[in-house]
Amino acid sequence: MARARELFLLRSAGAVVHWDMETYMPPRGIAQRSEQLALLSKLEHRLLTSPEVGRLLDEAEKEDLDEVQQRNCYLFRKEYAEATAVPEELVAALAKQTAITVDVWKRAKASDDWATFVPELSSLVDLVHQKAEYVQDVKGASTIYDTLIDDFEPNMTQDRIAHVFSDLRDRLVPLVDKCVDACTGIDIGYLHQKISVDMQKRIALDLATVINYDVTSDKAGGRIDETEHPFTTGYYDDVRVTVHYYEDNVASAIFAVLHEGGHALYEQNLNPEWKYQPVGQPCSFGIHESQSRFIENMVGRTREFWDFYLPRLSDLTNGAFSALTTDNFLRGVNIVRRSKVRTEADEVTYSLHVIIRFEIERDLWSGKISVSELPSVWNEKYDRYLGVEVKTDSEGVMQDTHWASGLFGYFPSYALGNIYGGQMLAKMGHDIPDWREAVKEGNTRPVVDWLIENVHRKSNLYEPAELVRRITGSDLTAKPFLDYLEHKYSTLFAL
Amino acid sequence: MARARELFLLRSAGAVVHWDMETYMPPRGIAQRSEQLALLSKLEHRLLTSPEVGRLLDEAEKEDLDEVQQRNCYLFRKEYAEATAVPEELVAALAKQTAITVDVWKRAKASDDWATFVPELSSLVDLVHQKAEYVQDVKGASTIYDTLIDDFEPNMTQDRIAHVFSDLRDRLVPLVDKCVDACTGIDIGYLHQKISVDMQKRIALDLATVINYDVTSDKAGGRIDETEHPFTTGYYDDVRVTVHYYEDNVASAIFAVLHEGGHALYEQNLNPEWKYQPVGQPCSFGIHESQSRFIENMVGRTREFWDFYLPRLSDLTNGAFSALTTDNFLRGVNIVRRSKVRTEADEVTYSLHVIIRFEIERDLWSGKISVSELPSVWNEKYDRYLGVEVKTDSEGVMQDTHWASGLFGYFPSYALGNIYGGQMLAKMGHDIPDWREAVKEGNTRPVVDWLIENVHRKSNLYEPAELVRRITGSDLTAKPFLDYLEHKYSTLFAL
Repeated sequence: MARARELFLLRSAGAVVHWDMETYMPPRGIAQRSEQLALLSKLEHRLLTSPEVGRLLDEAEKEDLDEVQQRNCYLFRKEYAEATAVPEELVAALAKQTAITVDVWKRAKASDDWATFVPELSSLVDLVHQKAEYVQDVKGASTIYDTLIDDFEPNMTQDRIAHVFSDLRDRLVPLVDKCVDACTGIDIGYLHQKISVDMQKRIALDLATVINYDVTSDKAGGRIDETEHPFTTGYYDDVRVTVHYYEDNVASAIFAVLHEGGHALYEQNLNPEWKYQPVGQPCSFGIHESQSRFIENMVGRTREFWDFYLPRLSDLTNGAFSALTTDNFLRGVNIVRRSKVRTEADEVTYSLHVIIRFEIERDLWSGKISVSELPSVWNEKYDRYLGVEVKTDSEGVMQDTHWASGLFGYFPSYALGNIYGGQMLAKMGHDIPDWREAVKEGNTRPVVDWLIENVHRKSNLYEPAELVRRITGSDLTAKPFLDYLEHKYSTLFAL
Repeated sequence: MARARELFLLRSAGAVVHWDMETYMPPRGIAQRSEQLALLSKLEHRLLTSPEVGRLLDEAEKEDLDEVQQRNCYLFRKEYAEATAVPEELVAALAKQTAITVDVWKRAKASDDWATFVPELSSLVDLVHQKAEYVQDVKGASTIYDTLIDDFEPNMTQDRIAHVFSDLRDRLVPLVDKCVDACTGIDIGYLHQKISVDMQKRIALDLATVINYDVTSDKAGGRIDETEHPFTTGYYDDVRVTVHYYEDNVASAIFAVLHEGGHALYEQNLNPEWKYQPVGQPCSFGIHESQSRFIENMVGRTREFWDFYLPRLSDLTNGAFSALTTDNFLRGVNIVRRSKVRTEADEVTYSLHVIIRFEIERDLWSGKISVSELPSVWNEKYDRYLGVEVKTDSEGVMQDTHWASGLFGYFPSYALGNIYGGQMLAKMGHDIPDWREAVKEGNTRPVVDWLIENVHRKSNLYEPAELVRRITGSDLTAKPFLDYLEHKYSTLFAL
């Protein structure tokens, strides 16, 4: 545990250095910063893979351990085994090729030049494949793609994902059709009126307070800064979010704060008794995403939330929204549209974007399709599931940074987050039936407390599937999420 | 060199984490942050004291080395030998007692309660003494106090300091008398008019640009933030300063930016060929201070500088200073007054504050006086050298954080910085006789280039005494600094 403590402390220090790079570092510092971060990674790797860790694990595993200790041993052993299974040269080659691929991707995306991206992406896929082969046994995964998924969603398999995603797709495609029809002609011009960045910053601080993410008091454990792309970073008593402010899109900042604030609440409320232990980490990327999307959508895009917050938003913007009814505003921030870009997608279409990526990854890693076939497969699926014609690869297959960064198996977490969230929402509605009335009064405490008790405090004690089963009493199922969507959108748009 | 590179990279990462603690860290993060910083120190100590470093040094020292390589070996060997000479328990005990003493000092200062501070300071002095005994041989120092001084001013001795400080004191005491008389009745009310923090921030950015410390361009390697006490931190391509803004004291921010900017220029312009090497570090605390005080006083408090900058300052403050002549303004920012507090002292009295501390430290470490006698000795010297009556220990012996932090031997560096600066100024006036005309046009490039070439680029290639000899052609002497002061203040106040 002393070794684990050092490891997590070093990671949390690295997170501060990384945050600084994205926020306040002077531009000339970038090369120096890359070297600092590389050294911190190297020292972290040394701490993790030291033979002493192996010996200590051997000894600990022989002891009579309680549940938490067993879980700590399991998690630390798994990480140790994976880190020691991969040859150092491969780790270095992967880091180097990732940097190259990201760089080429940026330029290829800017000039819509898929052809120059292909060879670098292929090399990266090859190296990711090699690495996965080294850790497949350690993870006990059946396939390479299952091995990759395990990094983000431990013990999840492509077959289980395919099963729930198929349910999702079957009901989402017709729901999208109906919603899009109903949304035709809705005017959301008021969401694009100019609201100054200073005003938006005050709104952001206020919203954080509303969801009990403290960024302003003298006991605050969080803060909000501005970056190109919003993110959350930190650990327990120091968890920070970032937002991007667009003068003509206040909704972007509003929902970014709620989304990242959901992530931040999770990190801040991990079980303090397990701080600096493997068991005191977040459970999975999917569970993390369930928390951010829960606060953003299942709380933050409800009528009750806006019954409370719309007058306050009007006050903070000198009346910019005072002519609107909750109903108008709510339709605007829940409008459903066929879009080509995942990050701009609404709650209904979002999962379809993810499903497309999952299906493509699955076929890529099973060898059914090759890297060079990605654009045609992409475009065909966007046409079939979302009814949009992708005209350029920049707005198509090259839109996301994930594949260029070697992150394969990551995408499913986004839609799993929605599915987990749907299951949690159903259970929370059962446990605290009046939570919506509280939100309507501006009181999110019951909701946040429920999440803390049921999700955050459990931290990494269980695998995600087991965590969801313990919280909701049922296995992974998309039904509650789909029921929620159908009910919400039928009411909202009188389908 | 690969080991040295890791060491300096880790230190520079630690500096970012420390900067964050002082600037943007949420308040609740403090305990976590202390642990992160303690771990980084521990990892740094591990890197430095690893037996591999000793073996590599043994081998390198047998090679045929050039001047730079020899210096690298010497510096790394010295640091390694010192770090391995002190038992780990003593390092830990010192860290612990320092934290306690600082904490007690803060409260004792606030309540003017010297008595509660004495036992903790005595314990700390005892531990510092023990540590110095361990490293005295490594440093080849004759006395404990010389050992302590060497941490800040390598190879400097108390005898040489006593010699120049005696010259300094002999001419400063009468100069102070004359200046104070001449300054009686000067009205500096205009320096205390309200200037908003936003305005002051714009002035700070502008002044940084004037001294060629880039904090605004897309190639900037610096930035300015706000903290309780100003400081400079960073390394080469990322060197940051902080300032405290007082609405009723714009001069405080102005000279803080110039002072810290002088420190920052030094760090940014260390020899890039030697980056991450021992020889690529700053030379000493005294040389560092010479650079900050050079920019602050020898450039920033000249008539030429204010001939240029006063109209600009008026523009930036909506005309707040437009009624003043350069002469008026210059007398205001150079006013000489008897004061009790070092950090508020002017250029003439400043060194006397330092001399008092030096004489007290010397007597303390030779055993001539004890910790409990510090207040009476302090008050007697303030009366004799500065003609002020110290009424409380808070504004007297407890005013500085240095002793509470275990930093003994640090104070002399401040006055050595003035002395070094005086020697450099004389030589620069000889090398570029028209530097003042350039400053009058707002062009500080010739001055900064001279400092870069003669001081910054030499980095840590020589011991401070040798560096000064090579730059100026003469040994350590207070005469140029005293000549400069007497000339400047005689002219300014028509003495």
